[in-house]
Amino acid sequence: MRLRKIANAENILKNNSQYVKLVPQEFKGKWKAFFNNSNPIHIEVGMGKGQFIINMAKNYPEINYIGIEVVQSVMVRSVEKLKEAKLQNVILVCIDANFLNDVFENGEVERIYLNFSDPWPKKRHEKRRLTHHTFLSIFKEILLVDGEIHFKTDNQKLFEYSIISMSHFNMEFNYISLDLHKSNFEKNIMTEYEERFHSQGQRIYRMEANFK
Amino acid sequence: MRLRKIANAENILKNNSQYVKLVPQEFKGKWKAFFNNSNPIHIEVGMGKGQFIINMAKNYPEINYIGIEVVQSVMVRSVEKLKEAKLQNVILVCIDANFLNDVFENGEVERIYLNFSDPWPKKRHEKRRLTHHTFLSIFKEILLVDGEIHFKTDNQKLFEYSIISMSHFNMEFNYISLDLHKSNFEKNIMTEYEERFHSQGQRIYRMEANFK
Repeated sequence: MRLRKIANAENILKNNSQYVKLVPQEFKGKWKAFFNNSNPIHIEVGMGKGQFIINMAKNYPEINYIGIEVVQSVMVRSVEKLKEAKLQNVILVCIDANFLNDVFENGEVERIYLNFSDPWPKKRHEKRRLTHHTFLSIFKEILLVDGEIHFKTDNQKLFEYSIISMSHFNMEFNYISLDLHKSNFEKNIMTEYEERFHSQGQRIYRMEANFK
Repeated sequence: MRLRKIANAENILKNNSQYVKLVPQEFKGKWKAFFNNSNPIHIEVGMGKGQFIINMAKNYPEINYIGIEVVQSVMVRSVEKLKEAKLQNVILVCIDANFLNDVFENGEVERIYLNFSDPWPKKRHEKRRLTHHTFLSIFKEILLVDGEIHFKTDNQKLFEYSIISMSHFNMEFNYISLDLHKSNFEKNIMTEYEERFHSQGQRIYRMEANFK
């Protein structure tokens, strides 16, 4: 059952190569050429169903957006949204975050968005959290100097963990909100998860941070 | 009216010199000699009515505690509590936090507690917040290498500000709780304020941090 679903998803993605790159390694160091302009590149790692990055691309046409998602059957939902949106400044990439170095040259990315990343609550799964130092190390390489990570989550424990982990990785915080939807942050674009959690009265936590 | 209250407080403090040092500068670099042992020295900056530090001193007889408070009429309340407690490992000091350098030698303090510090919410009062870099600079000097600041507050904005300010001052966080009373932190000693805010259902935020 699971295999059949993935096979279908892969076919759909293959048939939509103008929206999704299944072999994004060939664009490493060449993304600005791919977009045919010199605009900054912002990526979202774990974009899920794509609402956030597609709405960001609509609102900020002067930025090139690359959405990253490893699960093909989830990515199919983003492709559907992207087809409707008819945008020139966003492309989707199907790859595991462990291999971002194969897709981006050092300093090629100006900003990384992490939205409602899997909290992996068990201690033995700590290494899978996207704010574990092994991922921070990859992010640091592909980010431009002074490039930022923008992270939001409803998961209190993951946010606590991330502040600790990032501070130990010599990062500094430029923005922190411990209750985003009651803050004065006006530019928020919601993800699908965020709409659900927020409507349930859950707090959303948000930060902006850079490597020193 | 205000003057008369302060005059009374000063007299009370003068008459209780075994509990309060009004001229603590004379003990700079000599606090371990004052306590007549080599136990670590932990201080609370802005101890208010003293419940926290007195209960800490009861629970941890192997630590020397110094409570700092600038408002004499507030300190009188601590003296009353301290008289009842009959403790050998705690002394009170009446001084402005700006002058901690005059009271402690570099590295003389092993831990600094900041509990429910005044949030000074207006931007123009930012410099008065105890986690502003001018105070962090003083704390860094008097703290032993690897000594920690333990900070808790009910004030969300002050906690957000403090994470940002401390990370920019090259500090790292070793513990963060965004909802202390629902966390698994078992050693919590409540302050007077904390009891009130917690009973009103307010979240309490807590962190432990050190200078790199």
